[in-house]
Amino acid sequence: MSAARVAICGAGFGGLAAARAFGERLSRLPPVGEVLLIDKENYHLFQPLLYQVATAGLSGPDIAIPIRSILRRYPQITVRMDRIIGFDLEKQNVMLESSSVGYDYLVLSLGAVTSYFGRANWDQYAAGLKTLSDAHQIRGQLLLAFEQAERTEDPVRREELLTVVVIGGGPTGVELAGAIADLTRHVLRRDFRHIDPTKARILLIEAGPRLLAQFPEKLGRIAEYRLKALGVEVRLSSPVQDLGNRSVILAAETVRSANILWSAGIIPHPLTATLPAPRDRSGRLLVLPDLSLPGYPNAFAIGDMVSIPGVPAIAPAAMQMGRHVASLITGELSAGVIPPEKRPVFRYRDKGMMATIGRSTAVVWIGKAAFNGLAAWLAWLAIHLVFLIGFRNKVIVLFQWTWSYLTYGRGARIILRSEAARSPTRHKASTSSSADG
Amino acid sequence: MSAARVAICGAGFGGLAAARAFGERLSRLPPVGEVLLIDKENYHLFQPLLYQVATAGLSGPDIAIPIRSILRRYPQITVRMDRIIGFDLEKQNVMLESSSVGYDYLVLSLGAVTSYFGRANWDQYAAGLKTLSDAHQIRGQLLLAFEQAERTEDPVRREELLTVVVIGGGPTGVELAGAIADLTRHVLRRDFRHIDPTKARILLIEAGPRLLAQFPEKLGRIAEYRLKALGVEVRLSSPVQDLGNRSVILAAETVRSANILWSAGIIPHPLTATLPAPRDRSGRLLVLPDLSLPGYPNAFAIGDMVSIPGVPAIAPAAMQMGRHVASLITGELSAGVIPPEKRPVFRYRDKGMMATIGRSTAVVWIGKAAFNGLAAWLAWLAIHLVFLIGFRNKVIVLFQWTWSYLTYGRGARIILRSEAARSPTRHKASTSSSADG
Repeated sequence: MSAARVAICGAGFGGLAAARAFGERLSRLPPVGEVLLIDKENYHLFQPLLYQVATAGLSGPDIAIPIRSILRRYPQITVRMDRIIGFDLEKQNVMLESSSVGYDYLVLSLGAVTSYFGRANWDQYAAGLKTLSDAHQIRGQLLLAFEQAERTEDPVRREELLTVVVIGGGPTGVELAGAIADLTRHVLRRDFRHIDPTKARILLIEAGPRLLAQFPEKLGRIAEYRLKALGVEVRLSSPVQDLGNRSVILAAETVRSANILWSAGIIPHPLTATLPAPRDRSGRLLVLPDLSLPGYPNAFAIGDMVSIPGVPAIAPAAMQMGRHVASLITGELSAGVIPPEKRPVFRYRDKGMMATIGRSTAVVWIGKAAFNGLAAWLAWLAIHLVFLIGFRNKVIVLFQWTWSYLTYGRGARIILRSEAARSPTRHKASTSSSADG
Repeated sequence: MSAARVAICGAGFGGLAAARAFGERLSRLPPVGEVLLIDKENYHLFQPLLYQVATAGLSGPDIAIPIRSILRRYPQITVRMDRIIGFDLEKQNVMLESSSVGYDYLVLSLGAVTSYFGRANWDQYAAGLKTLSDAHQIRGQLLLAFEQAERTEDPVRREELLTVVVIGGGPTGVELAGAIADLTRHVLRRDFRHIDPTKARILLIEAGPRLLAQFPEKLGRIAEYRLKALGVEVRLSSPVQDLGNRSVILAAETVRSANILWSAGIIPHPLTATLPAPRDRSGRLLVLPDLSLPGYPNAFAIGDMVSIPGVPAIAPAAMQMGRHVASLITGELSAGVIPPEKRPVFRYRDKGMMATIGRSTAVVWIGKAAFNGLAAWLAWLAIHLVFLIGFRNKVIVLFQWTWSYLTYGRGARIILRSEAARSPTRHKASTSSSADG
C-alpha cells in the first residue's frame, strides 16, 4: 500500500502548525503518509504584525516567511503554490487552478477575509487589512496623503488628506489607530514645511458601546483613554450608515477623509460556502468535536473558518486546532481509522488575548488576569517575537522596534507605485508609469 | 530682497549630494537662498544594491530612504514629491503635474532610464532594472518561475521556466547573473521536490567581445571565468537580433526563457531631449566646464544625463558634480554672479569602479590598481555600506549580508501580487485579486 496523502489547504497559523506537527510526527514513523500543503502565496504571513507594515514600521519581508524554507527539513511535506478553486469531498479531490489533487485526509485552513457586511462598493472606499498587499496599499495611501497635503493649495482638500478614519474598534482597529497616531505625532513631525502632521485628525469609529468588545470592559476603557491621550477621536455607538468617495456617514455627522481604513469585520473564506457542511450565521463551519465535518470523517476544518463556542478567532486557537488534527490523523495512519465519535475531542487552552496601543502600552487578558501599561507592552513585544517564525526575522524585527523606539523613526516609509495604484484616493502624478525626476 | 530659490530636479546620487551640500553651506550663511528638491518618489534609491532586491537578498526599504528624513535637519531645504513634466528655461519655471514653480538657479539631475535601443515591444519581453518597482518585478518573476516549474507537467515549459537570460555584460548584468546563480545553486537548492533549482540554466549575453567593457580587460576575463565557475553560460560577441515572448534570438541560436532580464543599456531621462541644449549621440547633455548649460548660466546639469569625456556614469561622479554645483551656486548667492567662463571648472576625481561576482569575489579597479578575489569583495562590501545612507539601513544590510553568507538564506523571498501582475510571463493563478488558500 502506498502512503496516504494528507492535503492541507492554506498556510496560515492553523495550516502551518498542522504541517509542522505532521513533519515532526511522520519523521518518527515508517513511511505511512505524505503531506501536501497548498497556498496561493509563497509565504506564511505573520498577521498580528501586519498593522506595523501598514504604518511603515516594518517591511513586508520582515513578517512574510517563505513556506518552503520553513518546511524544508521535512521530506514528507511537499509545498505547492497554487490557487484553490473548489473541493469535491465525495471524490476526495481538491481542485486547483492548474490541475486537481486527490487526498486521503483533508485539512481545511483557509482563514478569513475582510467583510464589508455585503455593502456594495464599500471596499472601493475603505481599505481592509488582511493581506500583505492590503498593508502595502494602506502604507502607500497614508504616506501619499501627507505628500499631497504638503503640496495642495486647497484648504478643504488638505483637511481631507490630513484626516484618517479607522472603522472598527477591535484589536486591529485599536492597534492601527495607535500606530497612526505615533506616525503623525512623532515620526513625520519635523519632515514637512507647509503642513503640521501632528495636527492630523485620527478617528476611530466603533458601532458598539465600547472598544475591544472581546476583552473585559475595563481594558476597553483603558484602550479608549490611552488612544484619546494620543489624540485619537474615539466615536463609540456610531455605526457607519454609509461610505462614499472620501466620506464616512454616521448618524450624527459626516466625516470627510482621504484615508478610510476598515477593520470592522471578517468572514470565512468564500470557498467555505461551497462545502456541504452546516454553518453558523456568520458563515463559519460547524464541526464535530474532533474538528471533522459532519458526514466526512476524513475532512477537517480549523482556524478562523470554524465556529466553536468559547474559542476566539485568534492565532493560538488556530495553531492548537492544527496540532490536534495532525496528531489525530497521524494516529490513524499508524494505528487504523477511528470513527469520529471515538476520536479525541479538541479542547482550547486559553493563552489570552492582547493588543498594543501606541508606542509603550498594551492591554493583556490572560484567563482571570487583566493588565495594562508598560509591563503589558513588554509582554506583547516578547510574545510576538517568540511566535514570529525564523531567527533572521526575529533579529530584524527586534532591531527595527528598538530603533523606532529610540529614534521615533520608521524603517519602511516608502511609497511604491504599485501600492498607490490600488488606492481609491490616488493622485495621478504618483501612479504614472513613465519615469521622471 | 527675498532669498533666491534653487530648484533641484531629481533626488538620485547627484541631486541628493547637491541638496546636502546646499544644506551644509546655507546653514553657515545669512538667509541668501532656499532650496526646493523635487522627485516623483518619496525616497532616495541606493541603486548599486538594486540587484540584491531583485534577487531577494534585501527588502526594498533596506535601500530606499525617505528623502524627507535625510534632509529634515536643513531648514532651508523643502522637499516636494511631484512629477516634473517640463522646463521653461527662459521664464525660469519647472512645470509640475500639480502646478509650476519658479527658480533662480536650476540643478537638473534626472538620471537615466532603461534603453531598449528604440526596439518596439522589447520592454514587454525583457525586464529592466533601474527602479525599485523593476527590482520587485524581477524578484516576483524569478521566484514565481520556480513555483510554476515545480507544478507543471510539461517538460518544455519547465525548461523555459528554469532558464534565466541576462542581457548585457556590464556591471549590472555581471552582478545580476552572479546573484541569480547563488540563488539557484544555494538558496533554493533544497526547497523543491519535483525540480532541481541547481540545474537552472543561466545565460549572460553580451554584444561586445568581453564582459565589463569599462574595466581593464584582465578584470573582464576574471569576471567571465568566475561566472562560468558559478555555472553561468557566458555568450560574448552575441548581439541580440530580436526578442519575443519567452525567446531571445541570437545569430547562432534561439534561447527559450520565461525570465529575460535586460541590463544592456540606459539613456538619459526622456525630458533631457526637451531642453534647449546640445546633446551627444546617446542623448546626454553637453555642458560647459562649470556644468552649466550653454546660454543658460543659471541652469546646471549633473549625473547620468550629462556627457563629459573621461567621466563614467557612476554614483561617485554624480555626487562630485552635485557638490561642485552646490559650491558654485552658494558662492554666487553670497558673493555675486560670475560669468560661466570664470567659474571653477568641474574636475572628476577617479574613485574607481567595482562589481561583485557571486558570494565571495569581486573586481575592483582604482586608478592604476586592478584587483579581485576576496579582498576586492570585502572592499566592495565596506564601500557600499559606507555610502548607503542611514545608520538603520547600514545595520540591517550588514545583518542581512552576514546572515545570507552564513546560512545561504535570502531574506526577501516573497512574491507580491502586484509584482507578478506586471510580469509578461505571469500565471493567472497568482495575479487574481480574489483571496484563497
